[in-house]
Amino acid sequence: MSSYTVVMIRHGESTYNKENRFCGWHDADLSEKGVEEAKIAGKTLKEKGFKFDIAFTSVLKRAIKTLNLTLEELDLDWIPVVKHWRLNERMYGGLQDLNKSETATKHGEEQVKIWRRSYAIPPPSLEVSDPRWPGHDARYADLDKNVIPRAECLKDTVERALPFWYDQIVPAIKNGKRVIISAHGNSLRAMVKYLDDISDDEIVGKNIPTGIPLVYELNGDLKPIKSYYLADEAAVKAAMDKVASQGKAK
Amino acid sequence: MSSYTVVMIRHGESTYNKENRFCGWHDADLSEKGVEEAKIAGKTLKEKGFKFDIAFTSVLKRAIKTLNLTLEELDLDWIPVVKHWRLNERMYGGLQDLNKSETATKHGEEQVKIWRRSYAIPPPSLEVSDPRWPGHDARYADLDKNVIPRAECLKDTVERALPFWYDQIVPAIKNGKRVIISAHGNSLRAMVKYLDDISDDEIVGKNIPTGIPLVYELNGDLKPIKSYYLADEAAVKAAMDKVASQGKAK
Repeated sequence: MSSYTVVMIRHGESTYNKENRFCGWHDADLSEKGVEEAKIAGKTLKEKGFKFDIAFTSVLKRAIKTLNLTLEELDLDWIPVVKHWRLNERMYGGLQDLNKSETATKHGEEQVKIWRRSYAIPPPSLEVSDPRWPGHDARYADLDKNVIPRAECLKDTVERALPFWYDQIVPAIKNGKRVIISAHGNSLRAMVKYLDDISDDEIVGKNIPTGIPLVYELNGDLKPIKSYYLADEAAVKAAMDKVASQGKAK
Repeated sequence: MSSYTVVMIRHGESTYNKENRFCGWHDADLSEKGVEEAKIAGKTLKEKGFKFDIAFTSVLKRAIKTLNLTLEELDLDWIPVVKHWRLNERMYGGLQDLNKSETATKHGEEQVKIWRRSYAIPPPSLEVSDPRWPGHDARYADLDKNVIPRAECLKDTVERALPFWYDQIVPAIKNGKRVIISAHGNSLRAMVKYLDDISDDEIVGKNIPTGIPLVYELNGDLKPIKSYYLADEAAVKAAMDKVASQGKAK
């Protein structure tokens, strides 16, 4: 039976991560550290001999730039790159742009934890008149307004990300393409949840570190044979703890 | 009658331009100056209010990176980018990688001028065993070996670039997409020759400067209403003279 390798990478630190703000669909740039993380990811993949035939990413620049920098290190600038809104970060609704610590102070750390970490409870919805609603952004101009979210719980993100996995990523893998996906904490969780068959309760506690390539080896039925991070255990744990600590009141 | 705007940009200075070597399909990177040129091009386009819906480029990193840097300045990282070998630079065959001054000293300045500037006389062909033949490069693995050139005159470049113009760029324009093309001196000449109906003899003397956006306004039949560089005349002339002086013996 044939086997396939897919690599996922969560974008490096953004200016919003740095400021501890809910980013969601806001198009924050990478911080200097984020640029560095992306280059290191590319170098690590190159050292380990990874090659790719096609790349998938969101329409948000922190994921696109992470991908560009990674491909540059790999000398693979020339492979096709598919950018799609279904790989975007979770849309944080009324929390978007807010400082996470301030939100925790205002609504209580427990409420923020519920919004961030419950599977099916969405944060407050945006009015479509709110400038933060993505329907005002040219990059979503061709979308039916009904699919442009006003807020998403993780369940919503999983449900809108998986069609892209099924419709575009799976056919590429089955056609023998070596795939790299540069995306976001929650859109990557959608694929990890599906691949590893993780329960709704468990997925909310699973943190994917930024800038560390996550490798899945899949069998011919696209079931995982194994998966691992391309970094030593201590580095992965430190990066996961950092993600988990966001959203605590300071 | 509707009208359309298309912007072309020749990649910024590459390490090979800097060393005065025949680059062709060699995948040279941008020099520091080339990176700067690309950023300035992006800033200029932004200042003038240009927006784009889709971008086309070659599979060579000097054009891809010029595009990425330009789009970054425009805050348009998210638009679809189509990379295609038909937009590659002219394939210089046996001259590829050679220093232009050395070649001029060896073969005579006149012969080099013929190879560089005649429309239909190709430079010496590469053997397919030559490591410089692009058939050894993974990015052309899916191509029929017969279309991978062993050497090209400008006529050959025009003939393989124009199908991409007809098949992919024209439909995008006619569908109302605002198009930017980041490519090379000779693949851009192919489109300029076609659009401005320039004779074979005349096109060989036409130099497109690096890093300066070239704007075409087209009517509903895609005939040029006007075309102009987004820079002052003196800057354009200086850049053209620089290109014309390459290939002289030093």
